[in-house]
Amino acid sequence: MDTEGVWERIKELKPVVDEEIKKVIPKNHDIDHLYEEVHYHLGTGGKRWRPGLCIMTCEALGGSKKEALPFAAAIEIIHNFSLIHDDIQDRDEYRRDHPTVWKRIGIARAINVGDGMFAKAFVSAARGEEVGLTDKTNFKLMKLLSHVVTELTEGQAMDINSREKTEITEEEYMQMISKKTGALISGSVYGGALIAGAPEKVRQEVKKYGENIGYAFQIADDLLDFQEGKGRGGQVGNDIREGKRSLMAIHYIHNSDNPEKFIEILEKPREKTTNQDVETAIKLLEQEGSLEYASQKVDQLIEQGIKHLKPLPETKNKEYLIGMAEFISERDF
Amino acid sequence: MDTEGVWERIKELKPVVDEEIKKVIPKNHDIDHLYEEVHYHLGTGGKRWRPGLCIMTCEALGGSKKEALPFAAAIEIIHNFSLIHDDIQDRDEYRRDHPTVWKRIGIARAINVGDGMFAKAFVSAARGEEVGLTDKTNFKLMKLLSHVVTELTEGQAMDINSREKTEITEEEYMQMISKKTGALISGSVYGGALIAGAPEKVRQEVKKYGENIGYAFQIADDLLDFQEGKGRGGQVGNDIREGKRSLMAIHYIHNSDNPEKFIEILEKPREKTTNQDVETAIKLLEQEGSLEYASQKVDQLIEQGIKHLKPLPETKNKEYLIGMAEFISERDF
Repeated sequence: MDTEGVWERIKELKPVVDEEIKKVIPKNHDIDHLYEEVHYHLGTGGKRWRPGLCIMTCEALGGSKKEALPFAAAIEIIHNFSLIHDDIQDRDEYRRDHPTVWKRIGIARAINVGDGMFAKAFVSAARGEEVGLTDKTNFKLMKLLSHVVTELTEGQAMDINSREKTEITEEEYMQMISKKTGALISGSVYGGALIAGAPEKVRQEVKKYGENIGYAFQIADDLLDFQEGKGRGGQVGNDIREGKRSLMAIHYIHNSDNPEKFIEILEKPREKTTNQDVETAIKLLEQEGSLEYASQKVDQLIEQGIKHLKPLPETKNKEYLIGMAEFISERDF
Repeated sequence: MDTEGVWERIKELKPVVDEEIKKVIPKNHDIDHLYEEVHYHLGTGGKRWRPGLCIMTCEALGGSKKEALPFAAAIEIIHNFSLIHDDIQDRDEYRRDHPTVWKRIGIARAINVGDGMFAKAFVSAARGEEVGLTDKTNFKLMKLLSHVVTELTEGQAMDINSREKTEITEEEYMQMISKKTGALISGSVYGGALIAGAPEKVRQEVKKYGENIGYAFQIADDLLDFQEGKGRGGQVGNDIREGKRSLMAIHYIHNSDNPEKFIEILEKPREKTTNQDVETAIKLLEQEGSLEYASQKVDQLIEQGIKHLKPLPETKNKEYLIGMAEFISERDF
């Protein structure tokens, strides 16, 4: 199986997706500090793998890239709107080594840039009309998009709320990441299947693939924080410093007989957390098997996810979707 | 003609619109600091006249209230999302004598409350399906909504940009208010006509009614700033203190031989503008006929707007739509 070929395919699709985005968000525009900021932000990076998933799923089920592109672009625009608002909410000053949009143009305008993208995502989805999709499909896609963004904002609310809670259950954590991270991924593949005209039963299976890899993606992302040079902010244990309730942290707190010391480190203000604290916390997580627990969970989720691809015919695109799931478990991109 | 009856009708519709909003935004929800904040905000006031316009237009053209409600509610939700983000952008601490949402729960959560409403507006519009509208109409309504919000964010960008410009033309001002204020009003009546199944020619006429009263509404709102006890912040000349480029200010700057003194007052920092300055500015505007100019413009726009209602059959609802236009010119609500 050519599961490794998926990154070549994603790389190939990136400029195509970017062209599609430009159809609804022009690079040059007579209103300042709006659309050119979108392109500044998009220019800082991103692999466009979410729209890639949408297009590959659509093709795997007999649809075309052309038909999938307006909705695929909508998914990518929504993802980036959420990053721009996230950066304001977290007061993050850098993203991918570039100043964040709010840092460049201020909070007031950055909020509005995000809002503009939100609107344009729906404008992009509506372009399904121009590539020959029926009113029924177009309406379903717009409705799907509205539910995906609803989940995203609910997940964001849960995430902000969780920062003030000492106790959070694994169930609450899984619900939060399902909404904040998973909805956009499962929406992207479900949308692809819908565009291809796949029956609802198949769409539901594909959606479960998306849900599973969505969970896996987030947990793998949290695990990355413990790998040299891979974590957020380029520092090992950044999430420990920020007191983040990751799956590993939740596992430790619920399973250790003596979680006080770990909790104390998590709850220290960021600037007071020493490198020694981080090392201690990681050692504790290792001793309790919390890192191993999360890592196994990722593998299970990926395996589960791939199983749901069963109804798909054996094509190159199916191999890519399997490859994507495998890459996500390594989260090495 | 019973044009005065319109307020009774709007009052009657308000609880109906609020019930419709609750269908997509529940008052009680297990995620904190999200939907209950929407209801806190809605509870601070508002007459729901935009959804009222949508419903009355739909009925005037043979459609029903039931069919119009999901889209009418969507319009109201969008309007209120924009108020919540506006308050953050302007750092306004009070709205209708109540603390603004960001003042209550912080900027991060308030941005997300606005985003959640944005998403729910589309969820509400999609409920057209449940009141028997066709896929074609539902898709058109969702597309219309996405274009309306796009204009709104473009208008907001222009508004923020205008605060840094000393020179702004009447044309730029009219374009800005057409996007920021007018699009939602014309979208609301155009949507009502669409739901009623009116032909495109009639929809276009109705839209022009909306555009004209949209302009008139904003200019009348700016004029209110010079009436005792009616202006923003409960103070006469608040816009002068804030240096706002209203139509009157633009008229003065472009027509006076000696606009320097007026510009100087506008450009003084808010806290340095004295009551004497405000009085001087108002006197200058009166001498140059700038208030009169704006006031006549409102009357012309209202007259124009009402003319575009010609294709509507003579019904009670048409009288209400005329009444609404007349009330807007007085802007006494």
